Amino acid sequence: MCLGERENRGGARAIGFCLHRSSVNLVLFRSDEERRTLLRDDRRFQHLVSVLRIVPGDRVAVGIVGGAVTSARVTTVEPERIVLDWDGDDSPAQPLLPLTVVVGHPRPIVLRRLVKDLATLGVSRILVFRGELSEKSYLESSIWSDGSLDEALLLGAEQAGTTVFPSVSRLWSLERAIAAVSGDSVVVFSPDGPARPRDVLAELRGSSEVAVVLGPERGFSEKEENLIARTRCTRVRMGERTIRTETACLLAVGAVATATGWW
Amino acid sequence: MCLGERENRGGARAIGFCLHRSSVNLVLFRSDEERRTLLRDDRRFQHLVSVLRIVPGDRVAVGIVGGAVTSARVTTVEPERIVLDWDGDDSPAQPLLPLTVVVGHPRPIVLRRLVKDLATLGVSRILVFRGELSEKSYLESSIWSDGSLDEALLLGAEQAGTTVFPSVSRLWSLERAIAAVSGDSVVVFSPDGPARPRDVLAELRGSSEVAVVLGPERGFSEKEENLIARTRCTRVRMGERTIRTETACLLAVGAVATATGWW
Repeated sequence: MCLGERENRGGARAIGFCLHRSSVNLVLFRSDEERRTLLRDDRRFQHLVSVLRIVPGDRVAVGIVGGAVTSARVTTVEPERIVLDWDGDDSPAQPLLPLTVVVGHPRPIVLRRLVKDLATLGVSRILVFRGELSEKSYLESSIWSDGSLDEALLLGAEQAGTTVFPSVSRLWSLERAIAAVSGDSVVVFSPDGPARPRDVLAELRGSSEVAVVLGPERGFSEKEENLIARTRCTRVRMGERTIRTETACLLAVGAVATATGWW
Repeated sequence: MCLGERENRGGARAIGFCLHRSSVNLVLFRSDEERRTLLRDDRRFQHLVSVLRIVPGDRVAVGIVGGAVTSARVTTVEPERIVLDWDGDDSPAQPLLPLTVVVGHPRPIVLRRLVKDLATLGVSRILVFRGELSEKSYLESSIWSDGSLDEALLLGAEQAGTTVFPSVSRLWSLERAIAAVSGDSVVVFSPDGPARPRDVLAELRGSSEVAVVLGPERGFSEKEENLIARTRCTRVRMGERTIRTETACLLAVGAVATATGWW
């Protein structure tokens, strides 16, 4: 159920072609939106026209935030509007992974990209904390108030082809973040963790709720290190290389989803 | 051995603080370059001055492509030049992972970012192939001739804090790409692969050379699917969601590096 269906014309299989697409794989609407007509200034209009080059009769996957995934037939494509006729069968949205990502606040522009990608991967919660060594101003960034993160969540869900996405919260210390995941199996990804994530992560199999913790760019303070040491959590590292925050977060999600068998 | 050493002033540990930095963690020079003086129009000059705000006396990690990692003392910071005194002990560069990433050519701008990230993660080879359903023009993109990919490799290695990086090749068909990895354990990441990457990837433990294959954005043609079916390779998928090419490649590297125990 995705825009890849359009490839059917060329004889390709529908779902199989969607994994690696860099595009909107579902046109997502908020519950209070008009959902039949997309106007010219709407990014979804732009995408359907410019990238996917839809024509009347095409089908697109559609959904309402939190609702089912269905499909619509494009009935009208005009310079100022596209009209969609929602006539597909409903199928449930992919459930979110029972996974919380706890991350030290990166640069706001990086956080925005990260939130989008984590929404695509389907984590349940994103907790962004202010590390003691972090740039204090990041948590006051306009991305927390101007709708940037909401937009990033929608884009991530559209990429994934689903209608559900994580909650995002900011927390003023690692201590509060750790408290918020106290019932979960907690894994801290840290350069000085034990050598073999494989063996450590294997113990996660069967976990019902997992949280991964990644430090801020400047690392943990001594106080934070002591807090982590007192917490019942597992420390792993990902090789010896210096990896960007956003890359490290994606790898952590992939490693846990694989180790637990969620994937 | 990285620019994180600078954080030592604040009492933080050196290496531990580098994992999640989004910055140049090693200043990398080509073998034929002047390596004592950085001029104002050099991006490394800009980074050292604007982002890291170096002052005389600071130490920075430095290296020559393919050589050892060492450190230099900043002796001069002037508006037009920075002078470095290479006086650290040599330590060997992190070896590359015995891993080849075979990927259908994504949009050129995406490929550039991907090459940088794969260089950071330390894969040995990147083979970019023209899928039958791919945009044919991509392989003629200027990124293949204007030095963009070389620059991306350097940036990725600098992020990782190392001096070695993958080779990048373009191949005109999946068949040629598969032939190029014929001695490796080949894993195809595909939306219709078996359900559990965990179990499948576990068989990679002990593999000396592994190749991961990811299809182009529009997927594989029937001919390519048949080729894959004839090839001794393992098919896995990463969940049910539609993931961007670049994200899928990173997750594939992480999954394999974890499963094999390289990490």
